Amino acid sequence: MLFCVRMDVSIPRDLDPAEREDTVARERAYSQELQRSGEWAHIWRIVGLYSNISIFDVDSNARLHEILSNLPLFPYMSIEVTALTEHPSAI
Amino acid sequence: MLFCVRMDVSIPRDLDPAEREDTVARERAYSQELQRSGEWAHIWRIVGLYSNISIFDVDSNARLHEILSNLPLFPYMSIEVTALTEHPSAI
Amino acid sequence: MLFCVRMDVSIPRDLDPAEREDTVARERAYSQELQRSGEWAHIWRIVGLYSNISIFDVDSNARLHEILSNLPLFPYMSIEVTALTEHPSAI
Amino acid sequence: MLFCVRMDVSIPRDLDPAEREDTVARERAYSQELQRSGEWAHIWRIVGLYSNISIFDVDSNARLHEILSNLPLFPYMSIEVTALTEHPSAI
Amino acid sequence: MLFCVRMDVSIPRDLDPAEREDTVARERAYSQELQRSGEWAHIWRIVGLYSNISIFDVDSNARLHEILSNLPLFPYMSIEVTALTEHPSAI
Amino acid sequence: MLFCVRMDVSIPRDLDPAEREDTVARERAYSQELQRSGEWAHIWRIVGLYSNISIFDVDSNARLHEILSNLPLFPYMSIEVTALTEHPSAI
Amino acid sequence: MLFCVRMDVSIPRDLDPAEREDTVARERAYSQELQRSGEWAHIWRIVGLYSNISIFDVDSNARLHEILSNLPLFPYMSIEVTALTEHPSAI
Amino acid sequence: MLFCVRMDVSIPRDLDPAEREDTVARERAYSQELQRSGEWAHIWRIVGLYSNISIFDVDSNARLHEILSNLPLFPYMSIEVTALTEHPSAI
Amino acid sequence: MLFCVRMDVSIPRDLDPAEREDTVARERAYSQELQRSGEWAHIWRIVGLYSNISIFDVDSNARLHEILSNLPLFPYMSIEVTALTEHPSAI
Amino acid sequence: MLFCVRMDVSIPRDLDPAEREDTVARERAYSQELQRSGEWAHIWRIVGLYSNISIFDVDSNARLHEILSNLPLFPYMSIEVTALTEHPSAI
Repeated sequence: MLFCVRMDVSIPRDLDPAEREDTVARERAYSQELQRSGEWAHIWRIVGLYSNISIFDVDSNARLHEILSNLPLFPYMSIEVTALTEHPSAI
Repeated sequence: MLFCVRMDVSIPRDLDPAEREDTVARERAYSQELQRSGEWAHIWRIVGLYSNISIFDVDSNARLHEILSNLPLFPYMSIEVTALTEHPSAI
Repeated sequence: MLFCVRMDVSIPRDLDPAEREDTVARERAYSQELQRSGEWAHIWRIVGLYSNISIFDVDSNARLHEILSNLPLFPYMSIEVTALTEHPSAI
Repeated sequence: MLFCVRMDVSIPRDLDPAEREDTVARERAYSQELQRSGEWAHIWRIVGLYSNISIFDVDSNARLHEILSNLPLFPYMSIEVTALTEHPSAI
Repeated sequence: MLFCVRMDVSIPRDLDPAEREDTVARERAYSQELQRSGEWAHIWRIVGLYSNISIFDVDSNARLHEILSNLPLFPYMSIEVTALTEHPSAI
Repeated sequence: MLFCVRMDVSIPRDLDPAEREDTVARERAYSQELQRSGEWAHIWRIVGLYSNISIFDVDSNARLHEILSNLPLFPYMSIEVTALTEHPSAI
Repeated sequence: MLFCVRMDVSIPRDLDPAEREDTVARERAYSQELQRSGEWAHIWRIVGLYSNISIFDVDSNARLHEILSNLPLFPYMSIEVTALTEHPSAI
Repeated sequence: MLFCVRMDVSIPRDLDPAEREDTVARERAYSQELQRSGEWAHIWRIVGLYSNISIFDVDSNARLHEILSNLPLFPYMSIEVTALTEHPSAI
Repeated sequence: MLFCVRMDVSIPRDLDPAEREDTVARERAYSQELQRSGEWAHIWRIVGLYSNISIFDVDSNARLHEILSNLPLFPYMSIEVTALTEHPSAI
Repeated sequence: MLFCVRMDVSIPRDLDPAEREDTVARERAYSQELQRSGEWAHIWRIVGLYSNISIFDVDSNARLHEILSNLPLFPYMSIEVTALTEHPSAI
């Protein structure tokens, strides 16, 4: 099942720089692992923002929540989820 | 260049049924032709709405405007365009 | 899979009264059939509005879209879909 | 009487970790006690958010306010209350 | 139980003048009957608008919905309901 | 003259507890004094929120501003003022 | 007592041209009469809009409502009222 | 003096086609005349919308209002005006 | 040229009290000087808020920006500027 | 390709003054270098705000993101990007 997820990141200025660097690195690794497994189908940067628009392809709502709530940057994100389905005009 | 485009369709109730049917058919053909050419990279239905989220891959802003403003359903749509770029964590 | 769906109904004043009555009757029958099958798990009226908050329990996003887009009152509704999952504190 | 309540939780980063853990544990116990008594009829997690949608079945507005304002996480929540009633199509 | 209800009225221009006059007269009679019974505890005009802010004192959510959905002007109103309770500082 | 005033209170977490307690106590005394004088005609708690909806009956805009800007909790409130007048259907 | 009032005018396209012209002429005469009496203290056009920002100086909320609800263009306006008082820095 | 003006155009479906064509043609001529005089300094199409973002360079607010309120498409536009001034970093 | 400017003031709680007092005093002196020169034509307090609605009469956008950006409270204000012009019905 | 970009700057009060001064100086140099190269085609100050409206002329979305995300003030800005194209009435 497909979902469009928009993530807007806002890391607090006073986060310890080492923790910041580590969190961002873990976020990247986590995202890439899910991209390889196919569950994180697409990720694009929004121009001019520290934000992304992503497409997830997961087995259930529960799995999507598990993925999103375990994002290393989850505490610093606002997230918007839109349920998608196949479009009748898609080829 | 990539763009995320959301289209919300609202066809007036009093549109002539034949014109409605014809417009919807032309919209589908138009969309599928652009999907085949690769410019309309993805199209998904938003669950519960007469709306889609699409990804376009075009050479320029001008080309995207040309595509969108010639949609047969353009007069009955509200459209939202978000410029995208490659995400540094994309694999 | 669970979804919370809010539906706000606004039937045009100039809809033919017989068509209106028929549409509302078909809506009720359609809803009750899905309630019996278990897919439309809950429906509540919002006090003071011609609106409801419902819980759907369906197998997929595609099935939810099929259900919602076939609502007899669909052309006269604005719909908002929120994906849900089990709460860790639920008993 | 039925109410739909949405709770969005935002615990401050600088809350003492022990206090945080204790507050979350008390929240869970408090919620489960009310679920057992039947007043907190349903609770669902919103996918991708630290939020829930709940249904309360209480004797009065006063009782609902008493329940909500005594939530251990109340100081860190934004809350939205919608009064519900039986839907004429409910079976 | 107390509720604050805001009603914004927008009667369509093309409503038959006799029907308009009759509806407004029935609205007034209906409101005054409920004021006399004590369920419609207060009604104030908002300055500069065709709107009111009212306080209802009813036995249940169901009764409030019954009252509001039977307002003669209901089809031409947008309504906002806020559940109230006694304030601890009230004398 | 009548005004509807909504007050949403948000006391900062780091306010000294003694100052907090003192401010809340002074707020209550201040409110009750004005309720006794008749200028603060009604006050209700909004269910689920640290907020109230109040009705003031004052001689002038200037007097209302004097009352509100001297609320002990004024620095921690967001306030919304709506001018009211007698409703033609009020009995 | 002073009030800031913003009026946004939207005359329906299908209003009979003679009625339109007559309504606009009556609006102007009505406004100028109140400007002469001093109750309509200021009126300014908002650049680029069919809107004005006005200052009223009236004896009561009731009088302001009487003035506004009798504007010939009242049925075609959206109106926003803000209660004002003397500023402590005003000279 | 510089102003940024955004214009969103929404021509009613039932406008007579000849009148529509004529109005659009007059709009273009009017715009080009002001572009030549230098008062309409820039005009850009917003991608995907029947909208433009323009920069005006005029002698006064009054002149800007005169220009905008005489746009042939003025009755079918929503307009947003932002006053600009030279940026200290501009070269 | 006339502008309506709304200023909402929010001084941080942790500002040094002496600096706060000094800033507010300088704001008042600055405002009164501009009122005397005629550029700050009107200033009114919004009832219930630490906000004002003002009318400025200046020679240019640049001058208005100079005035506003030099307000001693500028760092603690949110500001909204609306360009005005003479109203055709003003007497 | 053209883009309209609005930048609203909000530098935290507690930023070290030397860092603040340095960041603002680097922002100015960075902006002027891009103005000279032609990619930052226009920049205007919004009257009354610490904000600008700019026009960028770049080869791609990726280049625009590179420019914006490297702004020295990027961490303290909220940014809004609107894709533009040539207007058919532009001369």
